[in-house]
Amino acid sequence: TNEEGEEEEQVVNPWEVSAGKGGIDYDKLVDQFGCQRLDDALVARVARLTARPPHRFLRRGLFFAHRDLNEILDLYEKGEKFYLYTGRGPSSEALHLGHLIPFMFTKYLQDAFKVPLVIQLTDDEKFLWKNLTVEETKRLARENAKDIIACGFDVERTFIFSDFNYVGGAFYENMVKVARCVTYNKVVGIFGFTPEDHIGKVSFPPVQAVPSFPSSFPHLFSGNDQLRCLIPCAIDQDPYFRMTRDVAPRIGYQKPSLIESRFFPALQGENTKMSASDPNSAIYVTDSAKEIKTKVCFKHCILVENYCNFIFYLRPFKFWSSIKSSVL
Amino acid sequence: TNEEGEEEEQVVNPWEVSAGKGGIDYDKLVDQFGCQRLDDALVARVARLTARPPHRFLRRGLFFAHRDLNEILDLYEKGEKFYLYTGRGPSSEALHLGHLIPFMFTKYLQDAFKVPLVIQLTDDEKFLWKNLTVEETKRLARENAKDIIACGFDVERTFIFSDFNYVGGAFYENMVKVARCVTYNKVVGIFGFTPEDHIGKVSFPPVQAVPSFPSSFPHLFSGNDQLRCLIPCAIDQDPYFRMTRDVAPRIGYQKPSLIESRFFPALQGENTKMSASDPNSAIYVTDSAKEIKTKVCFKHCILVENYCNFIFYLRPFKFWSSIKSSVL
Repeated sequence: TNEEGEEEEQVVNPWEVSAGKGGIDYDKLVDQFGCQRLDDALVARVARLTARPPHRFLRRGLFFAHRDLNEILDLYEKGEKFYLYTGRGPSSEALHLGHLIPFMFTKYLQDAFKVPLVIQLTDDEKFLWKNLTVEETKRLARENAKDIIACGFDVERTFIFSDFNYVGGAFYENMVKVARCVTYNKVVGIFGFTPEDHIGKVSFPPVQAVPSFPSSFPHLFSGNDQLRCLIPCAIDQDPYFRMTRDVAPRIGYQKPSLIESRFFPALQGENTKMSASDPNSAIYVTDSAKEIKTKVCFKHCILVENYCNFIFYLRPFKFWSSIKSSVL
Repeated sequence: TNEEGEEEEQVVNPWEVSAGKGGIDYDKLVDQFGCQRLDDALVARVARLTARPPHRFLRRGLFFAHRDLNEILDLYEKGEKFYLYTGRGPSSEALHLGHLIPFMFTKYLQDAFKVPLVIQLTDDEKFLWKNLTVEETKRLARENAKDIIACGFDVERTFIFSDFNYVGGAFYENMVKVARCVTYNKVVGIFGFTPEDHIGKVSFPPVQAVPSFPSSFPHLFSGNDQLRCLIPCAIDQDPYFRMTRDVAPRIGYQKPSLIESRFFPALQGENTKMSASDPNSAIYVTDSAKEIKTKVCFKHCILVENYCNFIFYLRPFKFWSSIKSSVL
């Protein structure tokens, strides 16, 4: 639907999301990444199997793509279980609304399917990509964990870990197994690294890959190495799991399934996502009503309408009404 | 001293050692790697400081090169301590005579200087480079540890660890810190990786680097993060520590010092080193006198004289006399 020139500007990878004025072309992304569209029939099947209305993020198409979600549902229908894996790169003090999307949706999935959940805090990733100390990324991980816990996960079925604390043992063994299956050429193709990039970047993809394998968590899933994994995430994380799905059968593991969301648009407009690196692009869960009003009215409110097309996804939030009454 | 053509054949890196017929040109290696020659004055200084005769490997020039050994001796003279770090890649069931060189020498250094020692078993490295399972490399590491312990290290001052067991926590933090300081171009320059090599190889150098930093061992050296480290090793391991020494000051750590040996020649001759990958090149500590005789007389004994030029380094071994009486 965009002009040719604008289409070419679209960049979506784990570190950058940008598109032309028309916003991100999600149809094109699905084709480019090779994932599947999440259609009404599949949403209806989720509702039937879980005997509850599908989450509004499903009904409204915020989660719009998947990989092998049907296989997870087949298993569930036969009475078998799976587990959920999602995560967060701790780059800011508090979460913003975009960060909440996968966590709110994952909470729904955990409630609806009654399954275990692992949440990875990639403090090592943020150390490698940002100009932060190890101590600072670990501190941000702890702060972020508090916001994540506040989403209301089942404490009996949820394991939150930071890479700096947890990497080692079976987790490290799986990292090395994945690394042996992926060439440098391959990661360059997937992630676009250059020879001037440091080797920490090249080394990181196996760290994000291995929570997809239950044997990485012997204290949770011991003896259940073939348990299937479902990953709710934004579609910019797809490259990690394309790689993971390619490697899994070669090291004797199941491929993870995915359910993937659109991005929460930046306050500046739909051509990029809300980003913790740019405070004016984001509303944090810790922002006051006044701060939110100021941010949303940034640039003389010309973008308010654009932005408000998305805000309805977040209706349950208590500050919703104050945003609405303040700015609309 | 070699012809031009032969000189060009010399390849020395952590995975390959080969040279022309004249054997390895160690003078050239010292210049190429940029390390320092270990001269008689330095050997005499070691003897004076430790108040004991220098080890025969020093007197006879088997350890022939170093990096900043004088700085370690300066510290020791002032009454300060340091620690030793050496290691082994567990690629075979038993150690061979070449493997014993660093361990025998390290035992002497530990006795003479009364210092702590860490010994890294790189089972992860052997998984990445050889066609072995994780379980097999871990088993080989345990078997090798027994041979290493038999060298007689001070049990109160020695920590032996396998990467698969120990990586994590402070050790993993240091790995990530090192990785952020080294570009892909840099590791290609140092180790010769190609784009078709898997990313496990690219990720490994930080694993071998970080035992050089005392903060990688909080249970041993807590609060003593500036403790100096001396690494006895064969000169083919120099590339890892050139990289480590380059990175150390950038992450607030001391550069490790090195003391480096020649190679124990293969039974086939001095143009390569004894290798566990080729059983006919090596005499294992578990070989019987009969097996040793067969191996040494391989190829109609034409190489015996060549080989025996080196055997005198190992005089203390109990099978020495049986080799000598059997084959000479």
